[in-house]
Amino acid sequence: MPVLTINMIQGRTLDQKRSLVDEVTKAVCKTISVSPDRVRIIINEVPEDSYAIAGELMLDKNNKG
Amino acid sequence: MPVLTINMIQGRTLDQKRSLVDEVTKAVCKTISVSPDRVRIIINEVPEDSYAIAGELMLDKNNKG
Amino acid sequence: MPVLTINMIQGRTLDQKRSLVDEVTKAVCKTISVSPDRVRIIINEVPEDSYAIAGELMLDKNNKG
Amino acid sequence: MPVLTINMIQGRTLDQKRSLVDEVTKAVCKTISVSPDRVRIIINEVPEDSYAIAGELMLDKNNKG
Amino acid sequence: MPVLTINMIQGRTLDQKRSLVDEVTKAVCKTISVSPDRVRIIINEVPEDSYAIAGELMLDKNNKG
Amino acid sequence: MPVLTINMIQGRTLDQKRSLVDEVTKAVCKTISVSPDRVRIIINEVPEDSYAIAGELMLDKNNKG
Repeated sequence: MPVLTINMIQGRTLDQKRSLVDEVTKAVCKTISVSPDRVRIIINEVPEDSYAIAGELMLDKNNKG
Repeated sequence: MPVLTINMIQGRTLDQKRSLVDEVTKAVCKTISVSPDRVRIIINEVPEDSYAIAGELMLDKNNKG
Repeated sequence: MPVLTINMIQGRTLDQKRSLVDEVTKAVCKTISVSPDRVRIIINEVPEDSYAIAGELMLDKNNKG
Repeated sequence: MPVLTINMIQGRTLDQKRSLVDEVTKAVCKTISVSPDRVRIIINEVPEDSYAIAGELMLDKNNKG
Repeated sequence: MPVLTINMIQGRTLDQKRSLVDEVTKAVCKTISVSPDRVRIIINEVPEDSYAIAGELMLDKNNKG
Repeated sequence: MPVLTINMIQGRTLDQKRSLVDEVTKAVCKTISVSPDRVRIIINEVPEDSYAIAGELMLDKNNKG
């Protein structure tokens, strides 16, 4: 512990993921006083046709533009 | 909030997903009195070799029938 | 399958939960063609001090208003 | 999106939670370029009798030490 | 990794939880060849008014019988 | 119920998955007294660039060694 899951829309670069897990881990360690090796993060990349706000898929929202 | 996750077996069409998130969002708004833009849905499509009932993968269950 | 998780802020009545699972189940069955007994729903009631938007706990957001 | 879930052992103070969601949100925004109001965080506080490492409950691990 | 979440109806004893995490960890280690200290399990105890099958809360199902 | 989610690094064989769900289901049934047909397992295979320990992606950890 802590174990984090980050759901985000598909398509970030590998470098963005590297920075994301690095910075989020630091934020967790700093604020709730755990050592970094205790922090686990699972990234779940969600396709645009599998995420909806207000009953509308992100895919359709983006195509409206 | 609310944030919903829907785990379902892979293979529905895009139109089925569209109807799914639309109708589920309406059901949530109607019953717990939230506005639609507050409702977020993440669909998780699970492959047949990654879901099991009674200790048997869906893949093997379907190949028997 | 399908297995749904509904995260929502704590405090709905039992009758609201009853309607919620009833209507959401119907919405799922109607749109992706599964029989009702296949649908499972887990409600996760999140306390106001455990949900944040834009880096602010719901508890603090509500106390401002 | 993004939607984060943070599972952590029960018992942090309200101020720790405040800092946690604030700092984690900033880390997410900075690294994957989203605006803060898009970031949602659900904290799940896990009791010591409901988390295990290596097949042993945290409760029992802590009582040994 | 692996990180497991076990959702189950509230009410098991502490000893049942102890056996559960012990046996499940062994089953994971044996079948996918990981060492026990890599296995983490989060138990999520779901109240009877927060779990539904076929659109009916477990609470109501049990009160019928 | 129970509903289990198993997050593990991508790359196990189909036979490993078969054994995993079989043995884990037995472990659950034995320890908390449920019948096998009540047990549902969702496997979530996480790519090496989507899992981090101590702020470092598994992908980078493995490439060092």
